[in-house]
Amino acid sequence: MELHDLIARLPDGAVLTDSDLLESYRQDWARDPDAGTPLAVVRATSTDDVAATLRFAHEHTIPVVPRGAGSGLSGGATAVDGGIVLSTERMRTISVDPVTRTAIVQPGLLNAEVKRAVAEQGLWYPPDPSSFEICSIGGNAATNAGGLCCVKYGVTTDYVLGMEVVLADGTVVRLGGPRLKDSAGLSLTKLFVGSEGTLGVITELTLRLLPAQPPQSTVVASFATLSAATEAILGITGALRPSMLEFMDAVAINAVEDELRMGLDRKAAGLLVARSDAPGEFARHEAEIMVAVCEKVGATEVFHTEDPEEGEAFTAARRFAIPAVEKLGSLLLEDVGVPLPRLGDMINGVASIAERNEVIISVIAHAGDGNTHPLIVHDPADAAMTERAHTAFGEIMDLAIALGGTITGEHGVGRLKKAWLPDQLGPDVMALTRRIKDALDPHGILNPGSIL
Amino acid sequence: MELHDLIARLPDGAVLTDSDLLESYRQDWARDPDAGTPLAVVRATSTDDVAATLRFAHEHTIPVVPRGAGSGLSGGATAVDGGIVLSTERMRTISVDPVTRTAIVQPGLLNAEVKRAVAEQGLWYPPDPSSFEICSIGGNAATNAGGLCCVKYGVTTDYVLGMEVVLADGTVVRLGGPRLKDSAGLSLTKLFVGSEGTLGVITELTLRLLPAQPPQSTVVASFATLSAATEAILGITGALRPSMLEFMDAVAINAVEDELRMGLDRKAAGLLVARSDAPGEFARHEAEIMVAVCEKVGATEVFHTEDPEEGEAFTAARRFAIPAVEKLGSLLLEDVGVPLPRLGDMINGVASIAERNEVIISVIAHAGDGNTHPLIVHDPADAAMTERAHTAFGEIMDLAIALGGTITGEHGVGRLKKAWLPDQLGPDVMALTRRIKDALDPHGILNPGSIL
Ligand SMILES: Cc1cc2nc3c(=O)[nH]c(=O)nc-3n(C[C@H](O)[C@H](O)[C@H](O)COP(=O)(O)OP(=O)(O)OC[C@H]3O[C@@H](n4cnc5c(N)ncnc54)[C@H](O)[C@@H]3O)c2cc1C
Ligand SMILES: Cc1cc2nc3c(=O)[nH]c(=O)nc-3n(C[C@H](O)[C@H](O)[C@H](O)COP(=O)(O)OP(=O)(O)OC[C@H]3O[C@@H](n4cnc5c(N)ncnc54)[C@H](O)[C@@H]3O)c2cc1C
Repeated sequence: MELHDLIARLPDGAVLTDSDLLESYRQDWARDPDAGTPLAVVRATSTDDVAATLRFAHEHTIPVVPRGAGSGLSGGATAVDGGIVLSTERMRTISVDPVTRTAIVQPGLLNAEVKRAVAEQGLWYPPDPSSFEICSIGGNAATNAGGLCCVKYGVTTDYVLGMEVVLADGTVVRLGGPRLKDSAGLSLTKLFVGSEGTLGVITELTLRLLPAQPPQSTVVASFATLSAATEAILGITGALRPSMLEFMDAVAINAVEDELRMGLDRKAAGLLVARSDAPGEFARHEAEIMVAVCEKVGATEVFHTEDPEEGEAFTAARRFAIPAVEKLGSLLLEDVGVPLPRLGDMINGVASIAERNEVIISVIAHAGDGNTHPLIVHDPADAAMTERAHTAFGEIMDLAIALGGTITGEHGVGRLKKAWLPDQLGPDVMALTRRIKDALDPHGILNPGSIL
Repeated sequence: MELHDLIARLPDGAVLTDSDLLESYRQDWARDPDAGTPLAVVRATSTDDVAATLRFAHEHTIPVVPRGAGSGLSGGATAVDGGIVLSTERMRTISVDPVTRTAIVQPGLLNAEVKRAVAEQGLWYPPDPSSFEICSIGGNAATNAGGLCCVKYGVTTDYVLGMEVVLADGTVVRLGGPRLKDSAGLSLTKLFVGSEGTLGVITELTLRLLPAQPPQSTVVASFATLSAATEAILGITGALRPSMLEFMDAVAINAVEDELRMGLDRKAAGLLVARSDAPGEFARHEAEIMVAVCEKVGATEVFHTEDPEEGEAFTAARRFAIPAVEKLGSLLLEDVGVPLPRLGDMINGVASIAERNEVIISVIAHAGDGNTHPLIVHDPADAAMTERAHTAFGEIMDLAIALGGTITGEHGVGRLKKAWLPDQLGPDVMALTRRIKDALDPHGILNPGSIL
């Protein structure tokens, strides 16, 4: 392998080959035990570096795994043996235009950094994955990341107006731009959003921004039964559009309370954190409606605050659920979504799956858009339990498909879920996907083994 | 040609071959004089009919031009010689689900009919092309139609959660579904939106709906100079997000006033119609801010109403601008978009182009998103003038590209603009587009000559 040739084409220090360093680029948060060992890691500093790397990979037919911040939960950034991990972590510029309410960002900036930079201009970039402090904006675009405010504000694709992307053979193309409307040609920008590094490497994004979000009112409600909680969810989304509507089950409530001691109702079967950002008094009005809905379905406790900081504390508690539940054991993290009326069936079905497979499964959810994260707790040292956990993982996806849902609402398919993708999409859509993949990456060097 | 074979595969009356009937399916609103004469028109009644037609066309390599309501302005539905026009006008069912706030619609329903059906359930389908009474929802998805409320609510793609589409060989696929979030596989739904019938025929759409729009406040302001008007536009969009921000120039104002006699300021160089739908009192607050901005930049007249009907009358006046200006002569209808700060340069540039080419060009615009519709007036009987009009048509697109804009903000490329598409996208993006087209329609039977 002509690695010296690659090193010569790139700035000093861009190519890592030291095995200790390579180790830290082998996995993402899915921690796939079958992760390969890459030939090299390229830490690109510019679009030119990305293009040079892909030209090299194209010439030698070497697999390339694009990598943002490695917070992915589907194994999409898992290294492959003999491949190159192409990291964008050093591509970190941003420029904000308050007049057009757009920002041009490089992919390596963290989501939280984008939020902060635009906030300085009084603007808001809505998409807010729970991992916002540790995930890159490029990774967000590559996975079409969701988050807590999606229920009202949509997902990443709704904020991507344009991009620069480097194709499999190293060609650099610009798609879309800082225009709210553009019908010139196929919607290629949108095709690359959510393509999980299988069609090209995103080297720049043009993002649509909104004016700063108004202060939010927050409602926290606990329920003695899961069915009361799901009834409240449907009641709230039927009455208004909350800016957030999150769910935690008993396991998650207790795990969070163990860590944060904020007085959550440990006896509850489920807890909702709901917010409204309607302007002025309307936030309080909407919060009052949400309180009334929760009381009507028999919530055991309902708490309502206008204080943004207090509201933020409950939101942070919900965001903290994954790390908190992780204290109980290793997690297989699910991401299934269902049409909202089937949410109760999904949650009950997961309970049966947990019982049948004798594993603990905690359910947290972006409840307002039907996207649940069953967290399957297991001990990797216990092979039998780990196998049961994996069985449950698959059964949950089967259930989501049976309920007319999706195997992934926001984390992407990556390597972990690709075995289930054909069950959801069917052979014809898989064939269509394959045709597009082959047209754009004929030698299959871009993130091979992911999605397809 | 085995047309009897096609007739046998379809319901009685689905295939039209009578030359009088064919005539009315040769053109869309662009009235391309070079329109071909189709072999037959198929008026499909179901997905099966569409699939049967495409299988037949695939077997015999016959071009197929998908057609909605034929209101397109880019010649995208222009018939080709010896081809089949595949009309969806008879596919007209809709079912609305108020719980998930989604609707499943067949493509032939008009936009206005979709709006009315969902309004009966207290819901709102935002996209509102000016042609909403005469364009189909399938055509809207195929062109990614915009409209007046886009400035706040986005375009058609933002409301398409899923679709059923028939591919070039007759294969029927389902993409996405009634889920607000779905990251399973490539974003194929979004790729088909805006593909103008070149990748597949849309036979069903799953649409995202919003709660009913709150009542709007309306501001109408006239300006003595174009620069004051564009200053007001930037001032308004910088201060808030209007639910509508439309512009008409002097020619359009007078043409509309000739027809409607509603007291528009005939001496103005430009007129803005702006609306706010912020909840409750906030609509009035926002209207007052817009009034203040207009006054500050020296508007000659500013009028403000809380009465929704009166506001609707001004909106209808703006929508009426195209037919009104059409009384002055035949129109070449432009659709260029620019980043908002370049709007003034665009409008001034169009004035120079009009002067240089000695044609009248009236400019109307979805000003809030930088999308302008220069209307080039000419007399088709006057060959020299018609040639000058076409020169101006091209120069306007060149100008848009030079200003970092797009040759089409919402009408699509179709046949009329395809000669300019490479100038905007460049050879690499054209090649990428071609690869996707070839992958999905290898024999090139779907709407040949459109876009590519
Ligand atoms: C505690 C926790 C909470 C989370 N909560 C959420 C949540 O609420 N919502 C949500 O959506 N996700 C969530 N995630 C998942 C993850 O943070 C997102 O998927 C995120 O978008 C990944 O970004 P990243 O930069 O870490 O990407 P990586 O993990 O590095 O990569 C993710 C995928 O994108 C590809 N990729 C990365 N950068 C590029 C690029 N520039 N060009 C092309 N392809 C690229 C990779 O090949 C890979 O397939 C969470 C993760 C954790 C650990
Ligand atoms: C007075 C007037 C005002 C207008 N104002 C606006 C406006 O404000 N905003 C705007 O965006 N447009 C506007 N338009 C343009 C036009 O109405 C839109 O482009 C509309 O979306 C076209 O819909 P249609 O059903 O008439 O499609 P058609 O004209 O029949 O077709 C348009 C294109 O879509 C394809 N197509 C149609 N149906 C399907 C299908 N089911 N599957 C696949 N491809 C299909 C056709 O092949 C063609 O390429 C206006 C037009 C007029 C005449």
